Amino acid sequence: MTIRSAEPTLHHMVNYYRQLDQTFAALADPTRRAILARLDRQDGVSVSELARPFAIKLPAVMKHLDVLDDAGLITRSKAGRVVTVRLSAEPIKEAMNWLRRYERVGSGRLDRLAAYAGDEEASQSD
Amino acid sequence: MTIRSAEPTLHHMVNYYRQLDQTFAALADPTRRAILARLDRQDGVSVSELARPFAIKLPAVMKHLDVLDDAGLITRSKAGRVVTVRLSAEPIKEAMNWLRRYERVGSGRLDRLAAYAGDEEASQSD
Repeated sequence: MTIRSAEPTLHHMVNYYRQLDQTFAALADPTRRAILARLDRQDGVSVSELARPFAIKLPAVMKHLDVLDDAGLITRSKAGRVVTVRLSAEPIKEAMNWLRRYERVGSGRLDRLAAYAGDEEASQSD
Repeated sequence: MTIRSAEPTLHHMVNYYRQLDQTFAALADPTRRAILARLDRQDGVSVSELARPFAIKLPAVMKHLDVLDDAGLITRSKAGRVVTVRLSAEPIKEAMNWLRRYERVGSGRLDRLAAYAGDEEASQSD
């Protein structure tokens, strides 16, 4: 019973790991980060408008958009011939949650050191 | 003169982009994230101890450590035959700083909307 009930949890964890893999891989490129920055400044930008500032061709921009879309970092909607791109920040929040514990590195270790020092003090006063 | 003084800034920016590329690429792998999590729990772990929980061979672990080291996420020090690995969180802080503005997506847009609404209100009361 324990094993059965653990299965969905494992499935969830595998998906969570895969999501983090995709998010960080998508962020590991300056053009893709610039696209996200543009979408943060302006909600709903057409693909051709998005591509304009970059020194790369439209098909290359489309490939970057595919990577961002696969990672869930953008959504694309089509109206006639115009594809509008929007930012979708949920994966970024999950990445932040993963990173947060490292932000103040050594804090966990300092806590343990403080606890140890406290124990030493207590044993000395015995 | 303006162009000359801009050069170090450009150089700094290129380094900053490259650092973010390396940090996010290093984080895009579950084994490397597990190594960082282990180093956060325990300061100074030998390579063989680090490798133990993983179902991959030592040379594969060494390759992951190289990637983490190149990204500045770990430091390695050698004493005799033992290589001790430590977490180095500075690149994570930079990644967090980059991600932070997306955490509350739409917040920037909401601010602008609020500013626009305020302007509208002001012009109506004129």
